[in-house]
Amino acid sequence: MSEYSAPLRDMRFILDEVANFDVISSLPGYEEATPDLVDAVLEEANKLASEVLAPLNQSGDEQGSRLENGVVVNPEGFADAHAQFVESGWGSLPFDPEFGGQGLPFTLGAPLLEMWASANMGYSLLPLLTQGGIDAIGHYGTPEQKATYLENLVTGKWSGTMNLTEPQAGSDVGAVKTKAEVQLDGSYKITGTKIFITWGDHELSENILHLVLARLPDAPGGTKGISCFIVPKYLVNEDGSIGERNDLRCVSLEHKLGIHASPTAVMSFGDNGGATGYLLGPENGGMRVMFVMMNNARFGVGMEGVAIAERSYQHALAYAKERVQGRVVGGGQDAAIVDHPDVRRMLMQMKALTEASRALAYYAASQNDLASHHENEVAREAANDRLALLTPLVKAWSTDIGVEVASLGVQVHGGMGFIEETGAAQYYRDSRIAPIYEGTNGIQALDLVGRKLPLAGGATVGSLFAEISGTAAELQNGDMAEVGNSLALAHEALVKATEWISTGHVDDPRAQGTGATNYLKMFSTVVGGWLMGRAALAASRKLAASEGDAGFYKAKIATTRFYAEQILSQVPGLLSAVTSSSEATFAIDPEQMTG
Amino acid sequence: MSEYSAPLRDMRFILDEVANFDVISSLPGYEEATPDLVDAVLEEANKLASEVLAPLNQSGDEQGSRLENGVVVNPEGFADAHAQFVESGWGSLPFDPEFGGQGLPFTLGAPLLEMWASANMGYSLLPLLTQGGIDAIGHYGTPEQKATYLENLVTGKWSGTMNLTEPQAGSDVGAVKTKAEVQLDGSYKITGTKIFITWGDHELSENILHLVLARLPDAPGGTKGISCFIVPKYLVNEDGSIGERNDLRCVSLEHKLGIHASPTAVMSFGDNGGATGYLLGPENGGMRVMFVMMNNARFGVGMEGVAIAERSYQHALAYAKERVQGRVVGGGQDAAIVDHPDVRRMLMQMKALTEASRALAYYAASQNDLASHHENEVAREAANDRLALLTPLVKAWSTDIGVEVASLGVQVHGGMGFIEETGAAQYYRDSRIAPIYEGTNGIQALDLVGRKLPLAGGATVGSLFAEISGTAAELQNGDMAEVGNSLALAHEALVKATEWISTGHVDDPRAQGTGATNYLKMFSTVVGGWLMGRAALAASRKLAASEGDAGFYKAKIATTRFYAEQILSQVPGLLSAVTSSSEATFAIDPEQMTG
Repeated sequence: MSEYSAPLRDMRFILDEVANFDVISSLPGYEEATPDLVDAVLEEANKLASEVLAPLNQSGDEQGSRLENGVVVNPEGFADAHAQFVESGWGSLPFDPEFGGQGLPFTLGAPLLEMWASANMGYSLLPLLTQGGIDAIGHYGTPEQKATYLENLVTGKWSGTMNLTEPQAGSDVGAVKTKAEVQLDGSYKITGTKIFITWGDHELSENILHLVLARLPDAPGGTKGISCFIVPKYLVNEDGSIGERNDLRCVSLEHKLGIHASPTAVMSFGDNGGATGYLLGPENGGMRVMFVMMNNARFGVGMEGVAIAERSYQHALAYAKERVQGRVVGGGQDAAIVDHPDVRRMLMQMKALTEASRALAYYAASQNDLASHHENEVAREAANDRLALLTPLVKAWSTDIGVEVASLGVQVHGGMGFIEETGAAQYYRDSRIAPIYEGTNGIQALDLVGRKLPLAGGATVGSLFAEISGTAAELQNGDMAEVGNSLALAHEALVKATEWISTGHVDDPRAQGTGATNYLKMFSTVVGGWLMGRAALAASRKLAASEGDAGFYKAKIATTRFYAEQILSQVPGLLSAVTSSSEATFAIDPEQMTG
Repeated sequence: MSEYSAPLRDMRFILDEVANFDVISSLPGYEEATPDLVDAVLEEANKLASEVLAPLNQSGDEQGSRLENGVVVNPEGFADAHAQFVESGWGSLPFDPEFGGQGLPFTLGAPLLEMWASANMGYSLLPLLTQGGIDAIGHYGTPEQKATYLENLVTGKWSGTMNLTEPQAGSDVGAVKTKAEVQLDGSYKITGTKIFITWGDHELSENILHLVLARLPDAPGGTKGISCFIVPKYLVNEDGSIGERNDLRCVSLEHKLGIHASPTAVMSFGDNGGATGYLLGPENGGMRVMFVMMNNARFGVGMEGVAIAERSYQHALAYAKERVQGRVVGGGQDAAIVDHPDVRRMLMQMKALTEASRALAYYAASQNDLASHHENEVAREAANDRLALLTPLVKAWSTDIGVEVASLGVQVHGGMGFIEETGAAQYYRDSRIAPIYEGTNGIQALDLVGRKLPLAGGATVGSLFAEISGTAAELQNGDMAEVGNSLALAHEALVKATEWISTGHVDDPRAQGTGATNYLKMFSTVVGGWLMGRAALAASRKLAASEGDAGFYKAKIATTRFYAEQILSQVPGLLSAVTSSSEATFAIDPEQMTG
């Protein structure tokens, strides 16, 4: 029941037809990413995901990670699985060959992130956080820091963490109190407590590099006074070998709703005088370093949403095909529940949302490669801005979808869905963290309206909207007119909402905040519809040319129709929720809010 | 943080202004239900809920119920709490004084059900299931059966269970295989296994009456061949005293996502030759008995949705008022997060949904009293039909709201929401069962479109729609025109959806099934808007007359505006999802549904 197999057909199709992988693989430096290599990578990754990681998902949830005598003990099998992951070089795929990476496109990394998280979300956070560390050190490290740390992170020999949150500093990172004091040798002594540190301590890696946000003496208040430090669990000797234990420790692990396999640590730095750390990036420039870590982490968390949706869907579909119950319209007694209209509708809802969120994520990943590897600077900048625009959508919409689809997955199972052994409940629990961490989905919505809509003076959003209109017209003029109409209507509502949230609310400064979440939902649903529409057009061309897997292409078109009729069609209905004033929301004094 | 206090102001207001409690208390037999008595009952119930039941909610979740050497051990404190519940007579409130009841209105029972479930959902299932048994025996029991069992159930001395489900018989009750064979003394020997039996075994009551669906030899297949039996845990001697142990036992307890305090049992009947049971109702008439149990149980489960939403809301509001983080528009640094626009929006969404679902449930409860106690037969029938129409809405919509609000509650807490100790995660887990049991929400939607819309040749739904139009017009003509407009637009879309789902789909027999769930959502959201509109009109009258609690009335009006702008406004956007054909939903062969 809890088997997983990567949706290779859809992954490959989305890479090719939505993320334009042929363009990506023709970028300078990506020539090795041939179609054959892509197939081989996806198939090998699926083996690890389905045969090694997935079978440990439920036992990892049951056993959890625990702290015993100061040592974090991970669930059975995780050490071996991680060793295989590292040995096969999966962590190194999109990174610079100079530091042990394989130099393959970031876009190709997207289906891999999806597979790891589908197979075993708790485990997948270990390489995900390590990626954040690689990005940060890759961008901001000195040559010496890169030489000392990067290869060990890229190969997966060492792992990385992000130490941002403190009890009083959650979404408000500027409230961080951890202290850093410079030493005579240029290093720093770090003192403070960090919470919610994912894979904050464990024995699966030889060393752990903590990237820690802290405050220098006399630093300005708020986010402008935060610096970032590399604080290794074990200090590194000059020859690169592992040295003595640093002054930091895991104080406790949290008892969480889900992702039990992943140890979420309270970390104490400097109980004995100060942990040794090394400044990464400029003094008081920690927020910039954090955003580099965070941006890819946000993308990665968005992939978790896609991944948990896919896993829930596979689980529910398998159950619905097996479980016999009752009679169906036009059929006999003893029908599989997949043939019951309301169950089939739930499964199609799960499938359509999962595929749309996958299309969005892979497409966004392709913008990352264009931004880093395109020969043309204007093209690089445009891709960079489009990626910036889409990142809050990937993070927030996909993770909301993860929760919605996991909840539908429980429902498809009926009473069995509520029984832990069935496995569906774990996805419902695991999925719930993703809308919260790496910037809550509310923060993403504020980022979209406050920072991303104004990009390039509005040109970033404008060019995207123009492409969406184009696809709507193409659909309307072809044999998917109703999909095109649905997209056009939804897009029209989105344009109105955009005008309002950009400029229409000037007399009501809170309205951008009260409208942001529903605005993000409108925006994402339209972008999802646009990419599903593009996928359906491609499938239609393939069918007309009698190329390849007709069953799959027909399914893609049907799923797009379902999406247009049942999901995209709801977008205009959200307009009022976005464009109402903040008055009703703020009319009640909090003291009068109880019944 | 996990304190609970019943929302007495809203409960009382909804009873008076939405459920028209003055009319209910003037019905023959209900004269005792004076305003003073209602106040006293609500206040006393709140004491038990907030001081006795609520403090056991989290420990009950942590400890769970477990099976030890064949005995079900409940969490600490539950036995005492139940003893207090029984001693104070809370279980007997709405029942016939002839059998130990207090003869008070069913409507007054609604806020009580809400309080028990808000305070401790796991515990509240024990009296809820007992109520189902009382209803069934009250309707179908012989005078002797009533004399033997009813008073002990009504007083709460004994408890009741519903034994319906078997591994192969979930939603399809007709597939039940448990056997019943008549004995010379007129009793029956029951043999079979039942699963998912809520409070199926425990030591809190002296005796447990299992109402068991089973099949007589040579009974027709399917639902027409099912009979209902009273199968006591301990046989009852002629003098009413407890006799020998019956041949039934709890085989195991399920390991569940939530409601851990409530033991969910696998029950085995007749391991040693057959459990002794007594036919309740006619031979092969078990489904009718089940529907009597089920109907009130469906109402009760709907109340669980309201209840868990209220509890989640209180928890999140308390946190949001305390938790300081960041700066807000127009305010300084160190704002409580309740003042952040997106957080306030989430809280208002929680509040509006909770109050709307409460209004619906209490209003439906009032129809129950009108149906049973009105002097006029036509009025009784109309109320009975309206109750029948609204019951699937109460069950499905309120429980979906329970899940949505509990999930928002987690989100308001940010990272702390994912930590079990915080308590918000428990509501997210507990709430998830309610859309499943007592008929999945999909089944409720099919019941609505298949059985309830046709009631009285369409007159039942027609008269409700006429009242909704009237309220919309009243709002439009007053100073809440925008609420009225929103209600009118939503109602118009609902009328279109109703026409389509009643008759428009004739060439597409599956379309009623694929559209039903979204139709139920449209219908419920409109009815919720209608009742919120009525509440706002009443609040407006109170304000104009300078009566009572102005802060509360203003809040009710603001909440209704929020509901109209942000929730009701989405109803027209659901029309396409309801009225699309089933074609896209069924276009893909299940074998092609994987990626």
